[in-house]
Amino acid sequence: MELRILGCHSATPKPGEFPTSQALYVKNQWLVIDAGEGMQIQLRRYGVKFGRIRHIFISHLHGDHLYGLFGFLSTLRLLDRHTDLHLHAPEALEPVLQELFRISQVQLTYPLHFHPLVKGQYGIILEEKHFTVETFPLKHRIETFGFVVKEKEAPRKIDKEALKQYPGLEIWAYHLLKAGKDIRLDDGRIIPNEALTLPPPPPKKYAYCSDTAYFPEVIPYIRKADLLYHEATFAEAEKALAEKTLHSTAKQAATIAREAEVKKLVIGHFSSRYRDISVLENEAKEIFPATEAAAEGKTFVF
Amino acid sequence: MELRILGCHSATPKPGEFPTSQALYVKNQWLVIDAGEGMQIQLRRYGVKFGRIRHIFISHLHGDHLYGLFGFLSTLRLLDRHTDLHLHAPEALEPVLQELFRISQVQLTYPLHFHPLVKGQYGIILEEKHFTVETFPLKHRIETFGFVVKEKEAPRKIDKEALKQYPGLEIWAYHLLKAGKDIRLDDGRIIPNEALTLPPPPPKKYAYCSDTAYFPEVIPYIRKADLLYHEATFAEAEKALAEKTLHSTAKQAATIAREAEVKKLVIGHFSSRYRDISVLENEAKEIFPATEAAAEGKTFVF
Repeated sequence: MELRILGCHSATPKPGEFPTSQALYVKNQWLVIDAGEGMQIQLRRYGVKFGRIRHIFISHLHGDHLYGLFGFLSTLRLLDRHTDLHLHAPEALEPVLQELFRISQVQLTYPLHFHPLVKGQYGIILEEKHFTVETFPLKHRIETFGFVVKEKEAPRKIDKEALKQYPGLEIWAYHLLKAGKDIRLDDGRIIPNEALTLPPPPPKKYAYCSDTAYFPEVIPYIRKADLLYHEATFAEAEKALAEKTLHSTAKQAATIAREAEVKKLVIGHFSSRYRDISVLENEAKEIFPATEAAAEGKTFVF
Repeated sequence: MELRILGCHSATPKPGEFPTSQALYVKNQWLVIDAGEGMQIQLRRYGVKFGRIRHIFISHLHGDHLYGLFGFLSTLRLLDRHTDLHLHAPEALEPVLQELFRISQVQLTYPLHFHPLVKGQYGIILEEKHFTVETFPLKHRIETFGFVVKEKEAPRKIDKEALKQYPGLEIWAYHLLKAGKDIRLDDGRIIPNEALTLPPPPPKKYAYCSDTAYFPEVIPYIRKADLLYHEATFAEAEKALAEKTLHSTAKQAATIAREAEVKKLVIGHFSSRYRDISVLENEAKEIFPATEAAAEGKTFVF
């Protein structure tokens, strides 16, 4: 998988400080997660092909995660898109989206499927051939949803070296092995599947938590993720403000990462008060060293 | 007055190609005209102080003139604005705006006054002490409004040189002259106001026409403007497309400018098909030499 940061600041954007939006490359498609204003420009700037986007996920309906959606959907129409687009977002968005299209007298050229997220929802919301997307509740001032993208376990791979011991095996044997079956030789011997196959690479897991207060209830969902994006709006000095606004400090984000035993933490959604975000990165690293601050255009491959 | 271009491209924005938005400085305030996505970033980038904005005008409800509004209004709240803001926009916008705020659970910190523009409306929509704003109908696929900003005639100025002929005049005489009155001297002579005052600088006039097909009916409203902004989405080679989409070619924009006897024409709303917009500028200049192509951040003082 590959995570590309399109915007990683909180509201009140400035030149070069786009609000939250990101794109995740998984199994030949780009999933878009949150859609802060300017998202379509950032997608172009950082090389995310619009045609490879089939699913958009909106965590909650605050403007800094949402207001880039409308322009993107309109642009797809002008580009004469015809393929399906799926929007997974809090249910209250759908009628407003319809009204926005209505007052613009816009007819989309492509089917837009709205998949409502409802209060308290958790579990799988998208099942593709090679991966799933799950949602789970976050804790914010408004109904907010986290997302986990998990690759499915791939089949074991045929071990070409091991096969050389059995030069007589034909094509049917390959098919049996790929299907996970053992092989019965002509002389009656059984060769277990594991003897002729190698384990697949472990499936990857990405977890997204923005926006949220410190909320250990997310840990079961995000446990052992290869990459966790967690908001870190404030430094420890502003902890009271974080509590009041239901955001997290960098240290809290790192604590979640440590407790969930993730491999790596990326923090973002920085308050505009921090001219230099290294204060946030450093506070997180004290708790969880494998932390990196998000930055526009930064790509994390895992 | 001073016109600052924030964005001058049509829809399907790209990095460095923001959709339509502009700010007009007149008598110590900035009027914002249209609000393409990214407007708030462009306002900051080009030095338009949010606190000096009291009025926003939206010409029509297509996304490339509108989708920067929501983020801007939200940001003002985060900046804890308390002063009034006036939004002049097609009437269908108001309920959608309310719904957007509702689903975001946003409470504005400042009074937002919605002034609806209704089908066929023309005439003064804002009267300030030193200027007025008028609207008039354009011709587009959806109800669309042009705007004219006109300074009011200033009072005549006292001519200090001429006054030297009458060394005995006291402060009351100055006040009479400023009020446009004649002066009666002690010896009974009347000195006409014009003999002791100079004409004020001629009031300036700015006219805005975007988006619109070629529509000579606008000429009475925009006549003799010091500056006319007129859309020029297409070159002459795409004239059929301009007709189909109810946009203008550069040549048509220039024809309107010439017929309306404006002093200067600025063209914008360029289709993304033109990598080099000099083709549009050159076609317009053939008809109306005092033409200049808009560009992001460009400022026109007049």
